[in-house]
Amino acid sequence: MPIDAVLATIDANLDASRERLFDLLRIPSVSTDPAYTKECQRAADWLVGELKGLGYDAEKRRTPGHPIVVGHAKAKRKDAPHVLFYGHYDVQPADPLELWETGPFEPRLADGEGTKNIVARGASDDKGQLMTFLEACRAFEANGGLPCNVTFLFEGEEETGSPSLPEFLATYRDELSAPDLALVCDTGMWNAQTPGVTVMLRGLAQEEVIVHGPSHDLHSGMFGGPVVNPIHVLSKIVGDLHDETGKVALPGFYDGVPELPEDVAKQWRALEFDEKAFLASIGLTRPGGEAGRSVLEQIWARPTCDLNGIIGGYTGKGSKTVLPAQASAKFSFRLVGTQDPAKIMESFRAFVRARLPADAKAEFVSHGASGALQLPFSSEALKRACRALAEEWGKEAALTGCGGSIPIVGAFKSELGMDSLMIGFALGDDRIHSPNEKYSFTSYHKGTRSWARVLAALAA
Amino acid sequence: MPIDAVLATIDANLDASRERLFDLLRIPSVSTDPAYTKECQRAADWLVGELKGLGYDAEKRRTPGHPIVVGHAKAKRKDAPHVLFYGHYDVQPADPLELWETGPFEPRLADGEGTKNIVARGASDDKGQLMTFLEACRAFEANGGLPCNVTFLFEGEEETGSPSLPEFLATYRDELSAPDLALVCDTGMWNAQTPGVTVMLRGLAQEEVIVHGPSHDLHSGMFGGPVVNPIHVLSKIVGDLHDETGKVALPGFYDGVPELPEDVAKQWRALEFDEKAFLASIGLTRPGGEAGRSVLEQIWARPTCDLNGIIGGYTGKGSKTVLPAQASAKFSFRLVGTQDPAKIMESFRAFVRARLPADAKAEFVSHGASGALQLPFSSEALKRACRALAEEWGKEAALTGCGGSIPIVGAFKSELGMDSLMIGFALGDDRIHSPNEKYSFTSYHKGTRSWARVLAALAA
Repeated sequence: MPIDAVLATIDANLDASRERLFDLLRIPSVSTDPAYTKECQRAADWLVGELKGLGYDAEKRRTPGHPIVVGHAKAKRKDAPHVLFYGHYDVQPADPLELWETGPFEPRLADGEGTKNIVARGASDDKGQLMTFLEACRAFEANGGLPCNVTFLFEGEEETGSPSLPEFLATYRDELSAPDLALVCDTGMWNAQTPGVTVMLRGLAQEEVIVHGPSHDLHSGMFGGPVVNPIHVLSKIVGDLHDETGKVALPGFYDGVPELPEDVAKQWRALEFDEKAFLASIGLTRPGGEAGRSVLEQIWARPTCDLNGIIGGYTGKGSKTVLPAQASAKFSFRLVGTQDPAKIMESFRAFVRARLPADAKAEFVSHGASGALQLPFSSEALKRACRALAEEWGKEAALTGCGGSIPIVGAFKSELGMDSLMIGFALGDDRIHSPNEKYSFTSYHKGTRSWARVLAALAA
Repeated sequence: MPIDAVLATIDANLDASRERLFDLLRIPSVSTDPAYTKECQRAADWLVGELKGLGYDAEKRRTPGHPIVVGHAKAKRKDAPHVLFYGHYDVQPADPLELWETGPFEPRLADGEGTKNIVARGASDDKGQLMTFLEACRAFEANGGLPCNVTFLFEGEEETGSPSLPEFLATYRDELSAPDLALVCDTGMWNAQTPGVTVMLRGLAQEEVIVHGPSHDLHSGMFGGPVVNPIHVLSKIVGDLHDETGKVALPGFYDGVPELPEDVAKQWRALEFDEKAFLASIGLTRPGGEAGRSVLEQIWARPTCDLNGIIGGYTGKGSKTVLPAQASAKFSFRLVGTQDPAKIMESFRAFVRARLPADAKAEFVSHGASGALQLPFSSEALKRACRALAEEWGKEAALTGCGGSIPIVGAFKSELGMDSLMIGFALGDDRIHSPNEKYSFTSYHKGTRSWARVLAALAA
């Protein structure tokens, strides 16, 4: 089988492969600090050089910020599938420097649990992950060529919120929407033994509500009694938002919220997620939220309504006998399935308005809304990727959710109409964004092998 | 009747009386500004001089702040009642100076509606009011002597919250608690034609509640769902505090809340208070609060629970996907009748604790509590004062409440065990604390005559 040859190449060239990663890790491509602008250019140039070295078309393209590297590689077969691989070459600042055991941009191998660890800023987020894919491609080139057409997209502003990316995707839409599927490597394994594919990302709708009452702040002695108090009005609305079982009480809120397929639910139960330890790590002893739903289900697969902030009246030290003219709160909704953010915002506004007593007015400020993203459980690409991962790791891949959003995945969907297959080999203890960031050498080695298997499986 | 002679003396000496008030108004005794410390001393000295000029014992006594003037005058009859008269000689700063039509400490007579107005800082608050009483005493001295024993207490720190007064009352408790009743002149008329006696002041209990949830702020995507949100918990509690009729839902809250005596209720209705205009002045169209209670009743005679402030999570511009570790709110309760502040605070804390879900904790910070003050409607002194006022003004005095507290009245009750009869002749449009403060010359003239009648009536 040709894949065995590819895997053998990966194994045989591991030292050289690690050296290439170390070269990239030595470039301090900190995107947020203008002092490192040239280093970001260097990292982009380095990647262009690697792609060209493999015989691919590649160039560094300008953006208003740091450049984006785009490359194209042809498969050996004409009818091969076409994937877009996304990674980012920029890293977080290394501060606080004094907490690093060795220089953040002097990569080294350190002893880890049952493996070595690659220690450096960006080792896990995202240079190590990015290189697992590139090294898989290299092994294919040594064995007759790639099984898939590949478009490479390497960004340099992920750590600063990808400000240039949406316009870049729009500018190069024709070129970048040609692939059938995006491969995104910015995610993690379920644990050190179990690979993971992230198949659902919750959406997010954010809305600020300002409730107005009297025309100006009033003395609570001279006016208290007949005056509508905006804090009470707002609190009452917040209090009504959930029922006694923890469900969100907005009419129509659960339209489009799917129940988990039984096989996925069963798989999640089999993950034996330690709810007690998870809750203890944030100072809690019992799951709140929707009654009868596990913690994992609540975070990955159930929608929420949360207040992220509230303010009104006097909030300094001591007391002040004031009846405030207004109070405001920031609401956010995490969305799943096919919940429609626009309809939910409409329902929310109506819910608020219906609860305003005489003389109270509500003002709404939207802070954006986007729906959930889900790779269908029935996706053929997902099934093939899972088989490939199981072969490499000897364990079924966990199909996980992610409670937060990954903006690039949303952009691929909205700008390019493309689903994303999110596979990464990071671990929960990789200390990304923190001193002594590391990437398990096993993640690097078996991650490279995993991508080889996935690419082969997608083209099979 | 001897009172006629006293009133005739007042009328005959009006110019000289006004000149004396002008002398006092020329002293810029601004208590809050250290630049005017000497002027506060001068005002106190001036008052000591006036009292001594009338043949009374009087002295300026030290405090950690501005001095307090204490004087004693004997009645002509041995078995006469003994009253304590309270006023303050300090004034608010005159700023903004550019908005004064003439110098704030250059008193003048200006045309007013159907009367002249005395214009100067302190004309109404409180030098003019204080002098109405002193001038009434002077008229008695010209006609054989006072009908009551009088203790004078003139403070110089009322506008800065009377910081020295409680200890002063404690130090001189034996001396100052000898009178039977306090007369407090720091209040107003119902309107320009109708005198008023303030007979009830609401009490005030203030409590801050801090609700704690997770041990630290969390990402709402990564954790949202099973995590107890302190803003929700707090809002739910606030929402539960009032029932649908606007009543406070704390168990036992209405213990000790009396219904108004029917004759008082009838009198209040007869005041024809313009609810619409009052509400319009604060941007409202309809009374909120307790259903079926008039605005006056709600402010004067009904207890409240109001939020004076709330804060939690992110409150800056835009949005932040945070689940906060805590949220806090400042609650205040206005109290009436014999509501027990301690019992209410206990009930409140139990109410909050009963509504805490698993893993939510509440912390309480008291910002003080004091009960309501009420001069009994059946008080003999009140009846006599009302008769005296009706004779002077040709109209029944309105028995009014005051939604706020007057700290000195509370201190007289708690420190000296003494009720206060609150009579003043200020009007709602006197612009106290504002540029061009004024005191109606009718208030000054008929106010002086009113005190003469009240003193005579108390001794009759």
